[in-house]
Amino acid sequence: MTAAAAHPDPALATPVCILGLGLIGGSLLRALHDAGHPAYGYNRSAVGADAATAAGYRASTDLVATLRQAADDDALIVLATPVTTIDALLPTIAEHAPDCLLTDVISVKQQVAQTVARLAPGVRYIGGHPMAGTSQSGWAATDPELFRNAMWMVTTTDDTDPADWLRVAGLARAVGSLVVPAAPDAHDRAVAAISHLPHLTAGATAAVGAGESELALRLAAGSFRDGTRVAGTAPALQRAMLEANGVALLNVLSETIDRLIAARDELRDHGTVEILVDDGHRARLAYDAIAGEAPQPITGVQIGADGWASELRRQAHRARVWMG
Amino acid sequence: MTAAAAHPDPALATPVCILGLGLIGGSLLRALHDAGHPAYGYNRSAVGADAATAAGYRASTDLVATLRQAADDDALIVLATPVTTIDALLPTIAEHAPDCLLTDVISVKQQVAQTVARLAPGVRYIGGHPMAGTSQSGWAATDPELFRNAMWMVTTTDDTDPADWLRVAGLARAVGSLVVPAAPDAHDRAVAAISHLPHLTAGATAAVGAGESELALRLAAGSFRDGTRVAGTAPALQRAMLEANGVALLNVLSETIDRLIAARDELRDHGTVEILVDDGHRARLAYDAIAGEAPQPITGVQIGADGWASELRRQAHRARVWMG
Repeated sequence: MTAAAAHPDPALATPVCILGLGLIGGSLLRALHDAGHPAYGYNRSAVGADAATAAGYRASTDLVATLRQAADDDALIVLATPVTTIDALLPTIAEHAPDCLLTDVISVKQQVAQTVARLAPGVRYIGGHPMAGTSQSGWAATDPELFRNAMWMVTTTDDTDPADWLRVAGLARAVGSLVVPAAPDAHDRAVAAISHLPHLTAGATAAVGAGESELALRLAAGSFRDGTRVAGTAPALQRAMLEANGVALLNVLSETIDRLIAARDELRDHGTVEILVDDGHRARLAYDAIAGEAPQPITGVQIGADGWASELRRQAHRARVWMG
Repeated sequence: MTAAAAHPDPALATPVCILGLGLIGGSLLRALHDAGHPAYGYNRSAVGADAATAAGYRASTDLVATLRQAADDDALIVLATPVTTIDALLPTIAEHAPDCLLTDVISVKQQVAQTVARLAPGVRYIGGHPMAGTSQSGWAATDPELFRNAMWMVTTTDDTDPADWLRVAGLARAVGSLVVPAAPDAHDRAVAAISHLPHLTAGATAAVGAGESELALRLAAGSFRDGTRVAGTAPALQRAMLEANGVALLNVLSETIDRLIAARDELRDHGTVEILVDDGHRARLAYDAIAGEAPQPITGVQIGADGWASELRRQAHRARVWMG
């Protein structure tokens, strides 16, 4: 493979430095390395770092040394640790690699942006969020194909630097993902609705079912199994994700409660659940239509031209994706 | 195959007459026939009856002739039409096959029992409910293996005739199902919790997600896809099922609303969703434990002996199943 073939996107020409080698960070290290992109990682626990090293990847438990290397390389730094750990990491990044571009893979964007601005105020940051994951975690669960055809949200505001945006979007493209440009608040509302809320409805459904009787759990079949699956995710992981997006989650949770109360009143007073069943069916068909078709590319936008960021967001709101 | 081998359970020695050859009724006809049990069916529409006949099964669109045959055969009659159609069928059954034992495959039990008592008062009836189904319907979707290892609830009250119970339980066993004995009200509460409620939580989750934006649906991944799947079932089928079990559904829906309101208040006032996430996780583990292990058989009960029905129910409430 030639150097040109290894780096089809010049925006990703410098190494990538990944902090945290769990499911997402470890899979990203593997995907980049296997595609010929220089990449290395830091992991707090020796177990994960040793496993990565044994598998032929560059990994270290020395945060400062890793960040100094990143500074020497002008690396793109990817924060891939749980949201609850970034307060401790950001000042160290600001101290040892203040000029590196920083991105992350955390499932909320407003809170991370605020924390970066507070704890690493000089560091350039563009948020990211790959919609990829399983209920598993840790290096053992990593998969270099994890990001193939996944949606990877990249923060896109009117203040975003075009060259920095292209580097982060190029990272997503390099591992096979499709880029979804969005403002941080729009992203947080969207994932509250389609990723965080389902954990609460699954939890409530599971708790009510299990509270009824073991007879009920014995009779449970597909609708209960699928509808409660994400309630099985480790509680600490669920809480870290959901609580970091509390404001947006409160809004969609309140709307959900309102809809269920309306359905209860309709059932009690008129013996029917027509409105909720019809609305839910229509919504599921809308999802099937978007999920079932090949993603349509964002077109006609030159990154950096006047109004590029708002035009990307506008097309993304119509479910289009950026493919470079 | 000898006659003895074809009828391992003498309780099922007479033919089975199935009214309605959709997914459940048609699959039952095929499963029984393929196992060597005499079985035949009625279907209102010629399309389904013709398809069954063409496939080598005995099927008719003549309800009265089918019922007269059942009366001659002392057949076990299985009502396998939607709950909304039984008011029209029951008086005809009572007129032409008043001495046949009647069972059904409908997903609610108290309402069916009351309707049978009102519209076919002389007919012996024992309710049944196989927990088997897909989102598809009609003869084309039938599968003779549909009931293999499925849970098949059989109404079991202190008034239940032991010989009749054995015939209905024998039907379930003949097609490979495991028998779950339950009182009608306990069954209805259980399926409200684990089968009907998930339709409403899925519908609300889908509607809130689709209402947010197409961006949200584009970002949606596994938790939304699985959590809203049953919202895609045809609305008329969902409504018929849910509204027939309105009283039990109201109770579990109210409990769900209470749990979600408590979670909203906890999130708003204390920034955490700990209680709901922990309860949901514990509930899902309880389900995984029951679903993941081989079913344990009900033991030590002689059908017809003193207290047999209550002992069956007691063991079923501890998730055990009757295997004959």
